[in-house]
Amino acid sequence: MDDWTEQVREQQLGFLEAAEDLDERAAEIRGRLDAAVTAGQPADGLRNELRWVTDLATSARTISRVPFLIPDEGVAVRVGGQALPLRPIASSFGDRLAELVSADSLDPLLAAERPLWSELRARLLELVTATKAPQGAALAPLSSARLPFTVGDYVDFYSSRHHAENVGKIFRPDGAALLPNYTHLPVGYHGRAGTVVVSGTDVVRPKGQRKGEHGPVFGPSVRLDIEAEVGFVCGGPVTGEVGTSAAADHVFGVVLVNDWSARDIQAWEYQPLGPFLAKSFATSVGAWITPLEALSRARVAPPAPANPLLPYLVEDTDWGLDLALRVSWNDTIVSNPPFATMLWTFAQQLAHMTVNGATVRPGDLFASGTVSGPDKHQRGSFLELSWGGQEQVELKDGSSRTFLEDGDTVVITATAPGEDGTVVGLSEVTGTVTPAA
Amino acid sequence: MDDWTEQVREQQLGFLEAAEDLDERAAEIRGRLDAAVTAGQPADGLRNELRWVTDLATSARTISRVPFLIPDEGVAVRVGGQALPLRPIASSFGDRLAELVSADSLDPLLAAERPLWSELRARLLELVTATKAPQGAALAPLSSARLPFTVGDYVDFYSSRHHAENVGKIFRPDGAALLPNYTHLPVGYHGRAGTVVVSGTDVVRPKGQRKGEHGPVFGPSVRLDIEAEVGFVCGGPVTGEVGTSAAADHVFGVVLVNDWSARDIQAWEYQPLGPFLAKSFATSVGAWITPLEALSRARVAPPAPANPLLPYLVEDTDWGLDLALRVSWNDTIVSNPPFATMLWTFAQQLAHMTVNGATVRPGDLFASGTVSGPDKHQRGSFLELSWGGQEQVELKDGSSRTFLEDGDTVVITATAPGEDGTVVGLSEVTGTVTPAA
Repeated sequence: MDDWTEQVREQQLGFLEAAEDLDERAAEIRGRLDAAVTAGQPADGLRNELRWVTDLATSARTISRVPFLIPDEGVAVRVGGQALPLRPIASSFGDRLAELVSADSLDPLLAAERPLWSELRARLLELVTATKAPQGAALAPLSSARLPFTVGDYVDFYSSRHHAENVGKIFRPDGAALLPNYTHLPVGYHGRAGTVVVSGTDVVRPKGQRKGEHGPVFGPSVRLDIEAEVGFVCGGPVTGEVGTSAAADHVFGVVLVNDWSARDIQAWEYQPLGPFLAKSFATSVGAWITPLEALSRARVAPPAPANPLLPYLVEDTDWGLDLALRVSWNDTIVSNPPFATMLWTFAQQLAHMTVNGATVRPGDLFASGTVSGPDKHQRGSFLELSWGGQEQVELKDGSSRTFLEDGDTVVITATAPGEDGTVVGLSEVTGTVTPAA
Repeated sequence: MDDWTEQVREQQLGFLEAAEDLDERAAEIRGRLDAAVTAGQPADGLRNELRWVTDLATSARTISRVPFLIPDEGVAVRVGGQALPLRPIASSFGDRLAELVSADSLDPLLAAERPLWSELRARLLELVTATKAPQGAALAPLSSARLPFTVGDYVDFYSSRHHAENVGKIFRPDGAALLPNYTHLPVGYHGRAGTVVVSGTDVVRPKGQRKGEHGPVFGPSVRLDIEAEVGFVCGGPVTGEVGTSAAADHVFGVVLVNDWSARDIQAWEYQPLGPFLAKSFATSVGAWITPLEALSRARVAPPAPANPLLPYLVEDTDWGLDLALRVSWNDTIVSNPPFATMLWTFAQQLAHMTVNGATVRPGDLFASGTVSGPDKHQRGSFLELSWGGQEQVELKDGSSRTFLEDGDTVVITATAPGEDGTVVGLSEVTGTVTPAA
């Protein structure tokens, strides 16, 4: 276990121990409360105390792993099914942190980088183990109508070997499934940052050109698809190469991503410069960012490389992540893509992305590419699940599909192992298809 | 001539008539000044008046076509070889404009869209025809160390048919030079907005993977190239399709672009998702934005389409632009790419880019792709000038090159026809290559 993991694990365990202490205190207060009620004595003070201690225990369990978001009123952390806005209790933090958590978005925090991110987690731990609620602390309803950060550049990788092989077979049936570069570098491309939207935003069916019998035809996409992905949110700015061993210092956290894709538009437009309008109409991300620290128990070795790697892509520590994704199509679970099967890790992706000197800005988002495992029920796109539209996907309501119909809803969720047998849940990403404009 | 051209032309002519009136006034003042000097009378007041009127005349001639920038102190317009900062004279404008021209960058002005852009030009015309200098007006040295706007998304098209054919022949010698989609849609892809830099910024030679005899090798690019392009700066936000006839309403102006490219990295990485690290290390743009209105005399019909176009790409008015580009390599002019030969216009590019529902943000930048004409001395990249590195390009100092060497400087300039025989000069874009980090 390396230093990073050790440190983060201690932090996680600190939260969990705090939760257990708080459970004991809650039990003790509950005893006094019962006694007071039985004796007909006034009990409102005890009731308030019990509520606060119980909330703190929940908070300790969930802050340890869940995450940052922007409900209506600036930076908050998720506490169970509620949000704890940090601005009203900003004075509980040091001056610099107080300023960062009082902002309207996570942007200033992303620009602060790892040492302050760690300090914030440490202060949150103190907060949930304090005996009194800080002045102004109040839980608020979850509301997630806003992107939690401003997306700088958006890069989409293609790091599932199984996905790349499936797409290769479907799109280029006469060629090799994998191109020669695939196992030597994390293939990726830039997407449209301005059309990244928060989970819950409707997705309007895009229009565009597709191949027809006698030249291209124009109309609403007839092969609208999803891509279930995991996205990484960067701090920064970072200038100069980020080696694989430093990558975690520049990644604030993780969001689930649905990179909606119009396969008919893509097949016609994508050569020679890659996907463009097939992907640029909408990319949905979860409303919460799960801090990278919360995934320390999920770290696993990635699959062995198929060939020796160039030194800048070699990892001295494992950054594969054992995230179990789940894709629901109109309430039917159609796939369980395993993120641990990805050929390239986020550390290798970031090292690759910066090896040419490209700078990284706070808010830059890079996604893994579609997560697909080796088995059929592990495919992260409908292109693969329907094998290019040839096989129907059966839904619970008795209907079947190849690609998305208007009104369809897709929900992507994921879990990861947490400390001591707990489970970390990532923010879901959901969207409903509405008819073409 | 359509309404837009008519209106803009009147504006241009207004500026030029103002300049002529000012010339007459200057001649009259000069006469009085000479008489005063001859008579030994005090003449400082006349000297000041003469200087102001002469500056105004220059201003009228150049504001009519040149443009907006951000020197050290916020929004300015270029007046001859100097800048006229607008913040000190903001009170000369209406309230809303005063706020926009007092900003630190052009971002708020870009977000204001066409009606306010036109109002600003009208006020500038009034300003240069006023008999007295507004309080606080003072010309400042040109300084162009900053990007004049924040780049939202950066899209790079591929709209020179000659360039696409040349690259096709060089990269895919055994295949068709043009792929089947090329004449049906403006092929393009997203680039990295975070590495767009202002003219004059050094460009560090990128490192990366290239194909070797026994698998990929890593090191500084050995085929570092340029792409001479024309870029279009958007207002916004715009949601919903922008038809070809509305495109000009959403484009604030034009910058020259050098899309530096590492051809060895590109050749190895670009399939199947397009260029990535080969382009993401730096893209240089000019320090001035030339308003689209200033190019109204440059409008020409684009080349006839090779096949019928889908309706959303048909133009009811011509948006080809007769810009004459010039590429200098260490002081040797190596190419004169003619922008009028581009197959797709900016109006068609914007229509295409938004037909799928993608939104446009103020500051979005889209570039034409390398501008290459049919002749050898009209090629806008060294890849083409050296025909894939096979032919040496001779420079004036007796040396020769195929691709860029460390220390090389490239300058791209362009001119366009203005009103009444004048010439509009676009902001140059220059950069010097420094050794790999």
